[in-house]
Amino acid sequence: MNMYDIILKKREGEILSKEEIDFFIEDFSKGQIPDYQASALLMAIFFKGLTKYETFLLTDAMKRSGDVIDLSKIAGIKVDKHSTGGVGDKTTLIVGPLAAACGVPVAKMSGRGLGFTGGTVDKMESIPGFRTSFEAAEFISLVNRVGLAVIGQTAHIATADKKLYALRDVTATVDSIGLITSSIMSKKLASGSDAILLDVKCGNGAFMETLEEATELGKWMVDIGKTAGKNMVAFVTDMSQPLGLTVGNALEVIEAIETLKNEGPTDITELSLKLAAYMVFLGHRAKSPEEGYEMVLDKLHSGAGLEKFREFVEGQGGNPEVTKDYALFPQASLSKHILALESGFIKSIDARVIGSASLHSGAGREKKEDLLDLSAGIILNKKVGDSVVKGEVLATLAANDQAKIQTAYDIAITGFAISSESVEKPMLFKKIIL
Amino acid sequence: MNMYDIILKKREGEILSKEEIDFFIEDFSKGQIPDYQASALLMAIFFKGLTKYETFLLTDAMKRSGDVIDLSKIAGIKVDKHSTGGVGDKTTLIVGPLAAACGVPVAKMSGRGLGFTGGTVDKMESIPGFRTSFEAAEFISLVNRVGLAVIGQTAHIATADKKLYALRDVTATVDSIGLITSSIMSKKLASGSDAILLDVKCGNGAFMETLEEATELGKWMVDIGKTAGKNMVAFVTDMSQPLGLTVGNALEVIEAIETLKNEGPTDITELSLKLAAYMVFLGHRAKSPEEGYEMVLDKLHSGAGLEKFREFVEGQGGNPEVTKDYALFPQASLSKHILALESGFIKSIDARVIGSASLHSGAGREKKEDLLDLSAGIILNKKVGDSVVKGEVLATLAANDQAKIQTAYDIAITGFAISSESVEKPMLFKKIIL
Repeated sequence: MNMYDIILKKREGEILSKEEIDFFIEDFSKGQIPDYQASALLMAIFFKGLTKYETFLLTDAMKRSGDVIDLSKIAGIKVDKHSTGGVGDKTTLIVGPLAAACGVPVAKMSGRGLGFTGGTVDKMESIPGFRTSFEAAEFISLVNRVGLAVIGQTAHIATADKKLYALRDVTATVDSIGLITSSIMSKKLASGSDAILLDVKCGNGAFMETLEEATELGKWMVDIGKTAGKNMVAFVTDMSQPLGLTVGNALEVIEAIETLKNEGPTDITELSLKLAAYMVFLGHRAKSPEEGYEMVLDKLHSGAGLEKFREFVEGQGGNPEVTKDYALFPQASLSKHILALESGFIKSIDARVIGSASLHSGAGREKKEDLLDLSAGIILNKKVGDSVVKGEVLATLAANDQAKIQTAYDIAITGFAISSESVEKPMLFKKIIL
Repeated sequence: MNMYDIILKKREGEILSKEEIDFFIEDFSKGQIPDYQASALLMAIFFKGLTKYETFLLTDAMKRSGDVIDLSKIAGIKVDKHSTGGVGDKTTLIVGPLAAACGVPVAKMSGRGLGFTGGTVDKMESIPGFRTSFEAAEFISLVNRVGLAVIGQTAHIATADKKLYALRDVTATVDSIGLITSSIMSKKLASGSDAILLDVKCGNGAFMETLEEATELGKWMVDIGKTAGKNMVAFVTDMSQPLGLTVGNALEVIEAIETLKNEGPTDITELSLKLAAYMVFLGHRAKSPEEGYEMVLDKLHSGAGLEKFREFVEGQGGNPEVTKDYALFPQASLSKHILALESGFIKSIDARVIGSASLHSGAGREKKEDLLDLSAGIILNKKVGDSVVKGEVLATLAANDQAKIQTAYDIAITGFAISSESVEKPMLFKKIIL
């Protein structure tokens, strides 16, 4: 078997075999296939596509290219929840405690973020003392004891995907449904859960901009996960404006706490309840998603979700008092308001623009080596459809550097559009794929 | 400008600008664009193509990536003749002397061969003393004095093409008309002639297997050459069986001498006269190709072509007595006949198979470093359409190594097909593109 023939075969639109896909991924991982041949194959795949079965084979090969986590020592059905990434998405921090409070073990492996804000691991590190680096045994005993734990994703998960993604990123071969699916799912399958709940974001702040594209990606991921023997559900949800009212690291953790106190924004609260309901259902703690919904709603109202969050923070070495005293979080020294230039109704809040402003405030990373300012970010006062009066505060920027806050301001101000006519609020929840 | 955007643009089927193509070739030449981005672009070009104007721009950029030869010190209109490569094609050795005898200056730059036999330079080196390495001034004075000289192609001609071709060869991106055209024409335009006569081979022994493909390539090359300001003509000729009766290095030189003595095979003689006629026409030594034909026919019959060949050999330090004594050529110590297994008519002689047998006899190179056996090769006794009697010699192999001659024999024997019904001789001359 040789790489030239594999490139030629795909170039001619033929279907690759398991042996060929395994050969490619194994030898590419070992550095035995040069990048120029890999990128030629990727471009041929861009044009000729992958069948779902080829995508499954590629996903499986990439999964096996790194460590595959064994969660069998955790009692119960492990359910993972994964978002394809959006601006202001802090649902994991709410959904995890609610599901765990219903008895679903949540063993969350999470990466550091590249882009608009940090990842879940970065966000949680804004809590003093919180750590995410554990030995496997410690992590598993934490999940068994608390019901919920988060571990930083190691470099050894789906290593071939990491290498391949870096190559796709510089050769204009990212946007191919089979490649996107296998990249996400290889990491999910390697992280050892029994069931996976996907939240596919859709809109200009997301990777998939249209409902059609997001639905297609959701279907592919569900199908690949099922072929791999996992129980799968995917949501398609709106990302045309940021989720909730905060974008940043500490800011989002505070909003998650507020939501667990049942004092959060409607959109975040409703989406978190729906996601948690499906986790409880997938984890066999409820007979239906509806029953799951009742259960998690009860945990929200009773404060059991917030209490689970505190246990979770304490379990990972963090100070649980943050839920009572937000001054324990890192504080930004500078703030700047964005004011409405006219009266009317918020027509749009461009999620991508707000995300970019957040990044430039210091809350996100452009390069892997960049240090995060965990206190920086944006607090929105308005959402799409809200009425606004000229001079009213639309949003407030937080940062620690004059130049950064100015850049963030200059970007963010372009993200708001106001209409003189009333505007309908966008539907957050768009689709479910079973 | 950056390479990612160029890949993306071509992937989306857009037309690249002169600035983008220049950027790619200049920076790729300097090693500032990684191979993996270049190969992704090549695969995108494979799928989305290049327009003729993009192809011209690419050709021109690649021409400028190396030395551009200045032949202005040679008096008269310099005409180059180039074959896309076939099995047994020794026409340059016949056409050059005939055209030069008519007063057309021929300054031939030629490479060493990779494949079935050596290149023109390799073949001529089978003449004792013949050398092809000259300083530019020496080469030019040789052409001015003799009317004909051959120089080995330096590594500095169209260097970007060399690097790009090596990449195409291992990434399944060779067969794209724009890339093929620019690869050939960048070298032709860099070698400084005023007019170019192309012989596009067509059939299973050639790069272009069908008449349609060969015609298309001819048209593209003619158009690109004209856009670059050159006078252009392309022939499309048959390569479904080897040209002439010999395949090898010394063997082909001897056949060329025989042809210049007007004792060569009909196909070689006829094609050489036609090519030479057009060279004389392109070199403005005849008012029409027909007049050119009469002139070169006269040079053949009078022996002036053979005499020019002898001057040419002597000019390059070779022994001109080889035209009178073939024992001066390197001799093979072993020979082996291929006999007809049945009586009938030769239905086909697979040019690719015979070429491969020649290579394995030692006459060709698989890798650049391989040493040639200049005496090795194949002499055909029959051509397609000839009648044959069971036990008659179809061909004779020549080599100096028992294992090699056996391998060559095992390959060559599969190349002949005999039919019980009479077979029409294939038309050698298929098309002319002006």
